[in-house]
Amino acid sequence: MLLSGGLDSTTCAASARADGFDVLALTIDYNQRHRVELEAAARAAAACDAVRHVVLPLDLSVFGGSSLTSDMPVPKGDGKMSDSVIPPTYVPARNTVFLSVALAWAEAAGARDIYIGVNALDYSGYPDCRPEFIRGFESLAEKATKAGDEGEAFRIRTPLLDLDKAGIARLADRLGVDAGATWTCYDPVMRGGEALHCGRCDACRLRHKGFVEAGLPDPTRYA
Amino acid sequence: MLLSGGLDSTTCAASARADGFDVLALTIDYNQRHRVELEAAARAAAACDAVRHVVLPLDLSVFGGSSLTSDMPVPKGDGKMSDSVIPPTYVPARNTVFLSVALAWAEAAGARDIYIGVNALDYSGYPDCRPEFIRGFESLAEKATKAGDEGEAFRIRTPLLDLDKAGIARLADRLGVDAGATWTCYDPVMRGGEALHCGRCDACRLRHKGFVEAGLPDPTRYA
Repeated sequence: MLLSGGLDSTTCAASARADGFDVLALTIDYNQRHRVELEAAARAAAACDAVRHVVLPLDLSVFGGSSLTSDMPVPKGDGKMSDSVIPPTYVPARNTVFLSVALAWAEAAGARDIYIGVNALDYSGYPDCRPEFIRGFESLAEKATKAGDEGEAFRIRTPLLDLDKAGIARLADRLGVDAGATWTCYDPVMRGGEALHCGRCDACRLRHKGFVEAGLPDPTRYA
Repeated sequence: MLLSGGLDSTTCAASARADGFDVLALTIDYNQRHRVELEAAARAAAACDAVRHVVLPLDLSVFGGSSLTSDMPVPKGDGKMSDSVIPPTYVPARNTVFLSVALAWAEAAGARDIYIGVNALDYSGYPDCRPEFIRGFESLAEKATKAGDEGEAFRIRTPLLDLDKAGIARLADRLGVDAGATWTCYDPVMRGGEALHCGRCDACRLRHKGFVEAGLPDPTRYA
């Protein structure tokens, strides 16, 4: 299970647990600017009784190409979401890298189900959050592994794929996720030693919109 | 270009250079037991005039499951190669992880050609060295990236794919590769501060057989 500590992956982990799985939680530390995510990931791993939580350093920032791992500015909202272009917060091939590492662990551990909290509706234009990417990875996993060679399939499970942010907020609520303990913001603001959500980046705006549309209180502390 | 410092990837790098490409060399430090590979990789990067050489720590050994990254014994030859089973030196999903990271760099750098020195003939039973895996990854790369989304294809180039070890030794010779500076052994023997090839693991035996069958002197220093 890929677990960033955001609302999506934390809800996805709770969903895996509700499906009856023992969770192996994998957090990739790709030198993201929002390192406060890592603390949220540890809370989320504990909350879903993870059998093991691995935080794997994998420094994609050496390659550049994204505002999340370099000095490119994080875009701030102007009142409307840009949904026709792939935004600068896209990290090249990130989910391919993440799923590959998850596949490596899954095969070594004898697990065949890999959970990832992508969703295609509010996907912010990232190509590697689309259903055809997920199905493509599943198909590759069969060709790529000893298990696949022996006729065993890996399933990439995406319980959030068809949900919008409101649907995710509702699912989180139903599964008893402590949404206030999750972290979403791309560009945290430090104040008095506490990291606050900026409230202005695409991720913050989607998150807030989700709670509002779900008719749920937004527990997030914004700057 | 994925560059381990072995005979195959070093020859593959020389081939990329001969094809007219400027080389971005990527070595994954996956905590392999044969760390002497990393020194060979640095020599190989210099030899192909790499524009940049990145050694990326990515510790697959935390997951276990392979004799290359754990305490499982490396198999020693009994005079015949075992070609019907996937050997314990298989690292789960290794080439999927490696190609994904290469894809991340390629997309960030605007490169569209990714070289990897796999070969399907002497592939030692690794599923992720087969042509169908390579074609599968190429197809996934299109779905996974912004570049693919914009209609640009990534090419996974495998100049060694159809060569046996003798063919690779001959190609290395033709391209002027210093084969003695490359590293192949899975289980190096230290003697007087020098790392020597064990001469007994599958990789060493394939390597030696290659030089012999090519009618070339084997420059390797064996224990």
